Amino acid sequence: MHAQDPSQAPTPEPSLLAAIDLGSNSFHIIVSQLFAGELKPLDVLSEKVQLAAGLDADDCLTEDAMARGLECLGRFGQRISELPRQSIRIVGTNALRQARNSDEFIRRVQALLGIPVEVIAGREEARLIYLGVAHTLADDSGRRLVVDIGGGSTECIIGERFEPRVRESLHMGCVSYTDQFFADGHITETAMRAARTAAMQELLSIRRDYRRLGWSSSVGASGTVKATLQACISLGFSHEQITRQALDQLCRYLVECKNVEQLHIDGIKPERCSVLPAGVAILSAIFESLGVEQMSFSEGALREGVLYDMAGRLRHEDVRERTIHALTRRYLLDRKQATRIEATALIALAQVKDDWDLEAGSYHDMLSWAARCHEIGLAVSHSQFHKHSAYLLQHSDLPGFTRLEQQLLAFLVRGHRRKFPKEEYRQLPDELRHPYRYLCLLLRLSVIMHRSRSKARLPAFTLRVDGTRIDLTFPPGWLDHHPLTRADLEQEAAYLRSIDFKLKAN
Amino acid sequence: MHAQDPSQAPTPEPSLLAAIDLGSNSFHIIVSQLFAGELKPLDVLSEKVQLAAGLDADDCLTEDAMARGLECLGRFGQRISELPRQSIRIVGTNALRQARNSDEFIRRVQALLGIPVEVIAGREEARLIYLGVAHTLADDSGRRLVVDIGGGSTECIIGERFEPRVRESLHMGCVSYTDQFFADGHITETAMRAARTAAMQELLSIRRDYRRLGWSSSVGASGTVKATLQACISLGFSHEQITRQALDQLCRYLVECKNVEQLHIDGIKPERCSVLPAGVAILSAIFESLGVEQMSFSEGALREGVLYDMAGRLRHEDVRERTIHALTRRYLLDRKQATRIEATALIALAQVKDDWDLEAGSYHDMLSWAARCHEIGLAVSHSQFHKHSAYLLQHSDLPGFTRLEQQLLAFLVRGHRRKFPKEEYRQLPDELRHPYRYLCLLLRLSVIMHRSRSKARLPAFTLRVDGTRIDLTFPPGWLDHHPLTRADLEQEAAYLRSIDFKLKAN
Repeated sequence: MHAQDPSQAPTPEPSLLAAIDLGSNSFHIIVSQLFAGELKPLDVLSEKVQLAAGLDADDCLTEDAMARGLECLGRFGQRISELPRQSIRIVGTNALRQARNSDEFIRRVQALLGIPVEVIAGREEARLIYLGVAHTLADDSGRRLVVDIGGGSTECIIGERFEPRVRESLHMGCVSYTDQFFADGHITETAMRAARTAAMQELLSIRRDYRRLGWSSSVGASGTVKATLQACISLGFSHEQITRQALDQLCRYLVECKNVEQLHIDGIKPERCSVLPAGVAILSAIFESLGVEQMSFSEGALREGVLYDMAGRLRHEDVRERTIHALTRRYLLDRKQATRIEATALIALAQVKDDWDLEAGSYHDMLSWAARCHEIGLAVSHSQFHKHSAYLLQHSDLPGFTRLEQQLLAFLVRGHRRKFPKEEYRQLPDELRHPYRYLCLLLRLSVIMHRSRSKARLPAFTLRVDGTRIDLTFPPGWLDHHPLTRADLEQEAAYLRSIDFKLKAN
Repeated sequence: MHAQDPSQAPTPEPSLLAAIDLGSNSFHIIVSQLFAGELKPLDVLSEKVQLAAGLDADDCLTEDAMARGLECLGRFGQRISELPRQSIRIVGTNALRQARNSDEFIRRVQALLGIPVEVIAGREEARLIYLGVAHTLADDSGRRLVVDIGGGSTECIIGERFEPRVRESLHMGCVSYTDQFFADGHITETAMRAARTAAMQELLSIRRDYRRLGWSSSVGASGTVKATLQACISLGFSHEQITRQALDQLCRYLVECKNVEQLHIDGIKPERCSVLPAGVAILSAIFESLGVEQMSFSEGALREGVLYDMAGRLRHEDVRERTIHALTRRYLLDRKQATRIEATALIALAQVKDDWDLEAGSYHDMLSWAARCHEIGLAVSHSQFHKHSAYLLQHSDLPGFTRLEQQLLAFLVRGHRRKFPKEEYRQLPDELRHPYRYLCLLLRLSVIMHRSRSKARLPAFTLRVDGTRIDLTFPPGWLDHHPLTRADLEQEAAYLRSIDFKLKAN
């Protein structure tokens, strides 16, 4: 059970997993060994990239900020050069959610490391943080409040054991609040109060629900909480935990220092000191608003959560499955019909995946999920329901899915009937456009074949493709006895001609 | 209990109601007397305007079509010139849903008659048709299938007594299908089959559900069914009802006539003959797809439904109340919070309605409904939930609401927090922009006052307005003890400055 150094292993070790977290303030990498369901960290690196501070007035990442990020990832890349690509996940958070040119940065990272960057929504980030923290805590049954103050957003979660109960991502962070309230480096009573009030306003949206639910212990994760605890200990305000009294003392201490230049606290690096007043103001607002008396610190964080999420998927406990299932229940879907279409779509995929280069497992999963929820929009209205399905998939809080995955699912269901959605198609990332167009066509054909919503089994059909040419063959005579399907396929051939595909059915 | 001729009454008679139906094929007006909850028709006029046939290649109403419509409405207008405007409703259906320049036509109608035109969604049309038909039938307890083949859409409803159970509006009608399949006037076996197949395809989306639900009697409404029954009787194919066999005979008869020019059937006007083959093809597809054996005809239709809907609102049985209630239940809303905000918004409205000219009862209702469902978008995602609330209100099937009312509600909830939605504001009809901007501001202030989601009652506040100046006064000292509300109001003042309003709170 001793940890091997994988860099000395001659072949890639399949039980090694790595996660990279492109935070608004710092980038982190963790490399771990998966052993009997538990992860043993082998290597942890962090670099202060300050991506969020590199947003210009138009909310675009500057060339400088991108360069800093890519240099850091070059170093991280060396560490994981021998790992198989599917053992590595890279997640982006608030800075990449905000930046209007994040696509450009993502493209460069993909070119550098050959791994896609997954930009995740705030509440998905909260879910993963909870997962990361929960694995570092004793497996008791009490409720926990978990708080992670990042550079651009703050996640607050209440959960039990490994299950988050409520989770929210708020628009406040130590980097963005430093820009707003401490840009000149002065630490005044007024600035501290303004930052705290702004944070209290953000917290209003969760205060009541969180207090009502309650918790028996509270835990903080990541740099701000770690530095605050360190400061409280170094300055003799508390031991082991951050108490409310110690936090008040620290606030006064910071104001007395007057300027971040004057801040010298044992165990805290100067670059962390520059965002400490904003972080402490936010934490103090959390204590006040939610009624926290003391908070401990956990080494677990987003990156550990990403690793445990990967480990779960390897053991076929994909939280995305549960999410899709919950979605179909919530919108009162005709699940039998969805299952029929899913089965047909996967049979169709199996027949064309060589010719259309759709071998990767993710295509199988995404087509399956799209088939299962393409009708959720019916809950809104029958008219234009494919658009409503797409809206719900794009905008709903879907645990386990990245924003790109939500966009791709939304594209597939948006295109499952009527005209092919050219505009949504153009908005897909370049390299995914072709495969997702193919997947969309497979879903369309499956929907047509089941349009009568009948329980009767479809006959064996043969799908052959060659580039943009599609041949769909049914047993002899079958189409003659199903004139509506024939008419639908003729209509479909007309739709497909407009995107230069040629459908022939007989 | 004899009917008075209201044109001879010296003063407007409050118990007279009128409904005008701007159908795709014909315009209809009905004037009725309301007596003990029942309506007694006094006057019914119909004119074949063929608005749908007046759509050009860009889906715009031509000047000619608009002129035909306005001439007809000039004649109708004379009939209702002495009725109070609130006793008259004008509804537009498929042709106005489709036309890209329907705003222009609506503006001209409003200028001519001084009454707004309500464009209603297809399923709302179906609900009203059912209401109109149900009032003409014996009050038995069996399920009924009601079918109305219009010029551009066909409504199919199954209901019991006065309650529709399922209702759908399908994209097929006797005018649009005439254009598609019988444009040259030839009636061939091939054209009949093509029209029938197209209709069967449309029906696939409801076939299974409707057959499963079942019905004990089926009834048709409006011109196509009436003319078909008339033809079956005149040609000796059936008596009293349209039977499946008679319909088959009629199809063969039409094909034998070869051309609409050759169609001369007792009791059917030539202009109805020109759209009869398409109508019969659609009706025949309905018989086949849903398994109808025979169908009777009811004189009740959309216009009668509109009248009964108005009569219900007069008796405070507004179906819109039920719709909003259902919406808040479906999306698991915090209804206590919604009720608090509604109460505060209505108190605010009461204080400013003179100065902002918001006397009309509809403003009160719309503000109340918006307050009650402004948080439904939380069911999708917390992030940007005001946008999700607006999407759901705009696109959901909301019985009783017109499309414009849905747009207005969507605007109010879209603007209830964060930046004022200038783009959505510009899209409102000219004359509603100012009042709805005011209503939106009232909702915003109410939401701010309840942001802590607390049960504690708000103190009495005074709202005074003068054009774009708003003064909000709390009891002395109250704001000092509620610094978060003060901060929120300061933030709000900044938002309002961007639309040139000046908010002062103390």
